[in-house]
Amino acid sequence: MKQPQARKTRRQSLQIRRARKIDRDAIWQIFRAVVARGDTYVFDPHISRTRALGYWFNQRRRCYVALSDEGIVGTYVLNANQPGLGSHVANAGFMVAPSAQGRGIGRAMGEHCLREAERLGFRAMQFNFVVSTNETALRLWKDLGFRIVGRLPGAFHHADEGFVDVYVMYRRLTPVV
Amino acid sequence: MKQPQARKTRRQSLQIRRARKIDRDAIWQIFRAVVARGDTYVFDPHISRTRALGYWFNQRRRCYVALSDEGIVGTYVLNANQPGLGSHVANAGFMVAPSAQGRGIGRAMGEHCLREAERLGFRAMQFNFVVSTNETALRLWKDLGFRIVGRLPGAFHHADEGFVDVYVMYRRLTPVV
Repeated sequence: MKQPQARKTRRQSLQIRRARKIDRDAIWQIFRAVVARGDTYVFDPHISRTRALGYWFNQRRRCYVALSDEGIVGTYVLNANQPGLGSHVANAGFMVAPSAQGRGIGRAMGEHCLREAERLGFRAMQFNFVVSTNETALRLWKDLGFRIVGRLPGAFHHADEGFVDVYVMYRRLTPVV
Repeated sequence: MKQPQARKTRRQSLQIRRARKIDRDAIWQIFRAVVARGDTYVFDPHISRTRALGYWFNQRRRCYVALSDEGIVGTYVLNANQPGLGSHVANAGFMVAPSAQGRGIGRAMGEHCLREAERLGFRAMQFNFVVSTNETALRLWKDLGFRIVGRLPGAFHHADEGFVDVYVMYRRLTPVV
């Protein structure tokens, strides 16, 4: 039982709240570090600050940050995956500061995000682009009830491994409303 | 051999070219008529002209029209499905004027689009949102070499049938470059 205990302790010091304008610099530092690796996210590893924040803070998205004693250690966005007749399905994207990985921050944000999506009335959540070599993400999303519903052959150009497959993952939700 | 002959004759009178500003009204009429049905496209059936054309003529997309003797009878858009490390996969959307359906215009545009995508260097094409009840589209895309690579449970709110599944379809391309 040691590990869950440890996880709980870590989580108690983690606060997750909506992002504010003042968080932009911290979010950009995380975004830049995560995409620079070219191994998990589709964004150009050399994306500009303006483009990155323009995407993350897009008006269609709700943006959140995870704060530990060290400051902002993670961020996620939540939005409808499609407009109109597909807007009952949510989509989300998650980034954890490389220096803070392995501490359950992604899981805490994932759980927070699922609750938020249900509170907002979404009926399901879909991830459009989970890189097949990203085992940490795959394990986490499966743990949180997602399953692979699609496989896109060679759809990601991995910085080290070349063209690799991408998964589409999906999970039903129980909207609160 | 009668049907292919007939199809060939019809296609000879069909011209497909890049859309121009002057085509906007004709495109909007098609867009409005297609989405009003709420049975194939995800857009709000009551979408405004501004929003519809803003989407269709988005700068990230190349927009084409199909012209018969009657004028513009179809339109399609071609774009990268993802930015950066996913930008080698194309995405496209097609609309045929309801009054011109069943005459091979969708097929002609589909074939044109595949050639354009290869010419532009794309390595694959992905459709993110093929409504499972849209048998005409499913048959056409299978005919043109696409296969279903994903299934999204209940991801479309069909005007008549309620929540129905959606397919993700994919096809490799042989880029010219």
